[in-house]
Amino acid sequence: MQHHRVTEQGDGSLIIVMRNGATADDIAHVVSRLSAIGAEAHVSTGRHRTVIGAVGDRDVIQELPWEAFPGVERAVPVLKPFRFVSRDFRREDTVVEVGSVEIGGGHFAPIAGPCAVESRDQLFAAAEAVAAAGARILRGDAFKPRTSPYAFQGLGEKGLELLAEARQEFGLPFVAEVLDPRDVELVGAYADLIRVGTRNMANFTLLSELGRQDTPVMLKRGFTATIDEWLNAAEYIYKEGNHNVVLCERGIRTFETATRNTLDISAAPVVKGLSHLPIIIDPSHSAGHRRLVVPLARVAVVSGADGFMVDVHADPENAEVDGAQAILPDEFAALMDDVRALAEVMGLEL
Amino acid sequence: MQHHRVTEQGDGSLIIVMRNGATADDIAHVVSRLSAIGAEAHVSTGRHRTVIGAVGDRDVIQELPWEAFPGVERAVPVLKPFRFVSRDFRREDTVVEVGSVEIGGGHFAPIAGPCAVESRDQLFAAAEAVAAAGARILRGDAFKPRTSPYAFQGLGEKGLELLAEARQEFGLPFVAEVLDPRDVELVGAYADLIRVGTRNMANFTLLSELGRQDTPVMLKRGFTATIDEWLNAAEYIYKEGNHNVVLCERGIRTFETATRNTLDISAAPVVKGLSHLPIIIDPSHSAGHRRLVVPLARVAVVSGADGFMVDVHADPENAEVDGAQAILPDEFAALMDDVRALAEVMGLEL
Amino acid sequence: MQHHRVTEQGDGSLIIVMRNGATADDIAHVVSRLSAIGAEAHVSTGRHRTVIGAVGDRDVIQELPWEAFPGVERAVPVLKPFRFVSRDFRREDTVVEVGSVEIGGGHFAPIAGPCAVESRDQLFAAAEAVAAAGARILRGDAFKPRTSPYAFQGLGEKGLELLAEARQEFGLPFVAEVLDPRDVELVGAYADLIRVGTRNMANFTLLSELGRQDTPVMLKRGFTATIDEWLNAAEYIYKEGNHNVVLCERGIRTFETATRNTLDISAAPVVKGLSHLPIIIDPSHSAGHRRLVVPLARVAVVSGADGFMVDVHADPENAEVDGAQAILPDEFAALMDDVRALAEVMGLEL
Amino acid sequence: MQHHRVTEQGDGSLIIVMRNGATADDIAHVVSRLSAIGAEAHVSTGRHRTVIGAVGDRDVIQELPWEAFPGVERAVPVLKPFRFVSRDFRREDTVVEVGSVEIGGGHFAPIAGPCAVESRDQLFAAAEAVAAAGARILRGDAFKPRTSPYAFQGLGEKGLELLAEARQEFGLPFVAEVLDPRDVELVGAYADLIRVGTRNMANFTLLSELGRQDTPVMLKRGFTATIDEWLNAAEYIYKEGNHNVVLCERGIRTFETATRNTLDISAAPVVKGLSHLPIIIDPSHSAGHRRLVVPLARVAVVSGADGFMVDVHADPENAEVDGAQAILPDEFAALMDDVRALAEVMGLEL
Repeated sequence: MQHHRVTEQGDGSLIIVMRNGATADDIAHVVSRLSAIGAEAHVSTGRHRTVIGAVGDRDVIQELPWEAFPGVERAVPVLKPFRFVSRDFRREDTVVEVGSVEIGGGHFAPIAGPCAVESRDQLFAAAEAVAAAGARILRGDAFKPRTSPYAFQGLGEKGLELLAEARQEFGLPFVAEVLDPRDVELVGAYADLIRVGTRNMANFTLLSELGRQDTPVMLKRGFTATIDEWLNAAEYIYKEGNHNVVLCERGIRTFETATRNTLDISAAPVVKGLSHLPIIIDPSHSAGHRRLVVPLARVAVVSGADGFMVDVHADPENAEVDGAQAILPDEFAALMDDVRALAEVMGLEL
Repeated sequence: MQHHRVTEQGDGSLIIVMRNGATADDIAHVVSRLSAIGAEAHVSTGRHRTVIGAVGDRDVIQELPWEAFPGVERAVPVLKPFRFVSRDFRREDTVVEVGSVEIGGGHFAPIAGPCAVESRDQLFAAAEAVAAAGARILRGDAFKPRTSPYAFQGLGEKGLELLAEARQEFGLPFVAEVLDPRDVELVGAYADLIRVGTRNMANFTLLSELGRQDTPVMLKRGFTATIDEWLNAAEYIYKEGNHNVVLCERGIRTFETATRNTLDISAAPVVKGLSHLPIIIDPSHSAGHRRLVVPLARVAVVSGADGFMVDVHADPENAEVDGAQAILPDEFAALMDDVRALAEVMGLEL
Repeated sequence: MQHHRVTEQGDGSLIIVMRNGATADDIAHVVSRLSAIGAEAHVSTGRHRTVIGAVGDRDVIQELPWEAFPGVERAVPVLKPFRFVSRDFRREDTVVEVGSVEIGGGHFAPIAGPCAVESRDQLFAAAEAVAAAGARILRGDAFKPRTSPYAFQGLGEKGLELLAEARQEFGLPFVAEVLDPRDVELVGAYADLIRVGTRNMANFTLLSELGRQDTPVMLKRGFTATIDEWLNAAEYIYKEGNHNVVLCERGIRTFETATRNTLDISAAPVVKGLSHLPIIIDPSHSAGHRRLVVPLARVAVVSGADGFMVDVHADPENAEVDGAQAILPDEFAALMDDVRALAEVMGLEL
Repeated sequence: MQHHRVTEQGDGSLIIVMRNGATADDIAHVVSRLSAIGAEAHVSTGRHRTVIGAVGDRDVIQELPWEAFPGVERAVPVLKPFRFVSRDFRREDTVVEVGSVEIGGGHFAPIAGPCAVESRDQLFAAAEAVAAAGARILRGDAFKPRTSPYAFQGLGEKGLELLAEARQEFGLPFVAEVLDPRDVELVGAYADLIRVGTRNMANFTLLSELGRQDTPVMLKRGFTATIDEWLNAAEYIYKEGNHNVVLCERGIRTFETATRNTLDISAAPVVKGLSHLPIIIDPSHSAGHRRLVVPLARVAVVSGADGFMVDVHADPENAEVDGAQAILPDEFAALMDDVRALAEVMGLEL
């Protein structure tokens, strides 16, 4: 056994695997480059492969294109690329406050409301019902990203005004989506929680903008993003100074077509292990079908997640957006009865 | 509105979409072929496309290679290809009896034990613990399919004998995997429930063989199979005469690498809508990491599923197979406390 | 056989499949709603399912949330949602002019250069080499979207100035990426072809902005987008008035990890069937490894595509971005020899 | 820099990453276990993580369930698990002889014929056409695995007899699929090359059986298998003594539905780097649509692959299996003209 203690600044490692047939010069070249950037190199020579362990400053080591070096087969990072959102950086759970509602650290937040704000009547009917049934935060969007350019795109600022009225009327803070970095200020002026949608998870311009203002942010997972990429996206917001980030799992794209996306429920316990940020589950947009929403919302309560967000619409047949997945006010009220009983078993506060 | 009533034998439809530019002859050719096989054709002509609805005997219509016909763009089946395992065929839930244990119809079955039988001591330690904690069925394999040809392949018949001994000793029926059609009789002579593993879900030779004998079968979902393909595989067993089939969701292959596979928990409510067969969840093989197993097993209880199957090993460090995902006897006992409380909320009998 | 001729405005159809057990009222309700929006309904009743064919104005029919209607199981659209980029709208190939270079309609465009502009020397070394070897368009980015917030983000306008200088010096028009709708005007003032990167394919704000200006646009496929979604994204640009859109296939996310993404080479002939727009292939960003780039670039020439785009760097070891996938000037020159021979076999003009 | 030379038996390494918070005891426990199995341990301590490099006998080290050890976060193998099929084991290309036809090492083999043998007339019409156009090996199956239990399952031995007759008549060796380990002897008695289908790639019982007989084997990639898993499956055959293995890429399952599967053309150059075995491409079963087959077959010639296999049927409308993807004899003849010209550019012998 050999033991190499690393100095305080050495917080990361990279494993560099050389090709079978890499020359002594190839190996010496990698070692000398590591040395030039202040990293330690530990070389192990096997029958078929030489492996070089590089230890030093993560940002410096990982930035070099090692796989472009002669004789290098691949480079395997040992640490995750995110930093401040990691459990390594902060052990205790972050609790995000949205209005007077806490998310995380044993506080489970049911979020509900219509997918899009379509009119005052439509919004208020849904808001009244979800408030009565026990939702803690209202959802409703004023800007909608649509796959087809010919579909309804949202009411814009008028929608935000209606949401603010509903907040006043029913006592629920609200979450609404932002699509464009130029609208961050506008949405932030109204909403209690700004949502980044799945298609914008890797819109780094938008993320940085959100990091430089104060309203808490809900960051949906890109439907094709790995958990590591999602936490990296959270890092974009966090490192700019906004530490109130709530993650939202909403299904990933797979080969299965029975559901719109495949809800990755394992993401709840996985994220809890990797990060201190709270995470909620969106069963509506992952499932895409009304009858799947209630069982998946129950699942959220016992999965380790800190909340869920479901679409509720009093008249889904006439919904402008995603009517097929909205549950009815009665279904939501029955769900909340189950939620209270399950939360008690789990020791969660609603 | 036009209304076409279909005769008793007409139980299926196919939508044939013609290409833009399909000629009148192309259309007449499809219509005449449909007529020749006794199916009705409903032709709708739009500006860019002609669409032909074919109504008649599903097996006859769907067998023809319509996309090989001139001018045909694609053919969309309206009904699923499976039949006897469908809710259309049987409305009420099937309850499968495994020894004296019922699975389905409100009976939730906790199944637990080691991944592979390695020795009498190892098996009995795990069996004793899971029986004491409240498992109803024991798991343990005598034949293991391994990705690497150099890995441990199981104890074979000796393993089955040990499982039969453990059944005697601890009063739990057991489930074990079969890999080869030539071993069906052997495994069936010992086991209360024969398992088809994920890699064999589409091994139709094996499925047919299992359909022609009497022991109940647990059919794991192929980790790359859609739910439709999985139900088709169940149909292979069911149509041969063995109606005691339990489905088992165990994760699907996706781009996410934080878990070994992505547990598709939505499959529980989806399958309940499509089929009358019971379904259980395997959190161990989907997650691949010990610390994810307990939350995912809890999730199973509230998802609409009829049971779960978890790997329990008293000494995972020394396990021959999949030690990284086995939970300890103590963890299993604590899980069962949660399971009892959650089952009560859900109105399930254990 | 029944035949329903549809009026000029009826250009689309939707197949509505009712559940087993849907009532006569459920069916009548759907039919009456179709009638209210001016669409025709063709009802076929089978043993297990009733199927309703709706024919009329696509935008009106497809906007309703049919799956939220009582008794509806699913709704299957017959036509693709995109319109102006479809071969149905325009039969002949669109040829896009980038400076004096044509892409499409038998003109194959080799595009090459460094991934990012890092310095005048680096850019000019690469540009000189690719021009000499026969590239027709130069690539090089001034703005880079990076997964990690700690990585090099590009030179900004300074990079665009260097690209313009290189154009002057080596006689090649250039393509550069835009990330932010606020930078469209800036990039458009310099570049001959503006690129939308894979992460922004569904950034509809950005797409609409690009549709309202005149510089041709290269639209990379989202690495998790279906071909239909990609063509929909192109529709966002096209319908705003900018018809000079070049598609670029660059690999999709799959479970395979041997390559960074899986190059979907079938997309070339598929897109040629569905759309009149030109399509090019990016082997560098899909493969992620230098030694795969040359065979995949050759593949592009015979696949039906209209060009390729490859990263070339004179000193990949010192590249700031994606050095591992850049080929050397010598490798590019040898590739171009093959390309000329293969293009001749295929009857393509370089 | 530290340098550790490893003894002859030390051909593999494993990187063991400890959790943040792993104790000195946890680390000592891993090190002591490594020492007990005769492996060297190199311990590097960073600020957040300790990393242990294990060097020694790969089979011994990799078999232990390291992730079940207290304090271990993950274990990363440095070498691939396959051995004899690796380029590390054999540098020069393996050339497989099928009858008098060579595959690999610069010999490109066009394989063509009907998907399934349906009748003497059907088989002979296709065989005559493909022989005349320049195919070197005939394809045609006597046993078919079908997703639906109600579909045509093949002619069985009668089909093999017809293939043997066609070989005699047209002078082409033939390839046919085996589904069941009990049929290996039967198929081997007739065929020149036995094919393992995509659904059986991980049927290890079947693979081992094939490894113990002499007829060359074509191993199709599982449509959900990684390249590493595929090479592992080849290892199952190779290590039993049958070294004549031809790999066949036939598309993988992805989210894209425009093609039946996504042809992973990058697999050709990737496999050439990892293994000495020949690889061919099957464009028919990946694409699933006739009009995509010709461009994808051309792509195969320039990709680095050693052959292709395409479905040809003289009357696809009446094909029992996969008619939609079969090309016509005339289309095949035109394709072969292109193939000859492209092979010449690539320096390949047909």
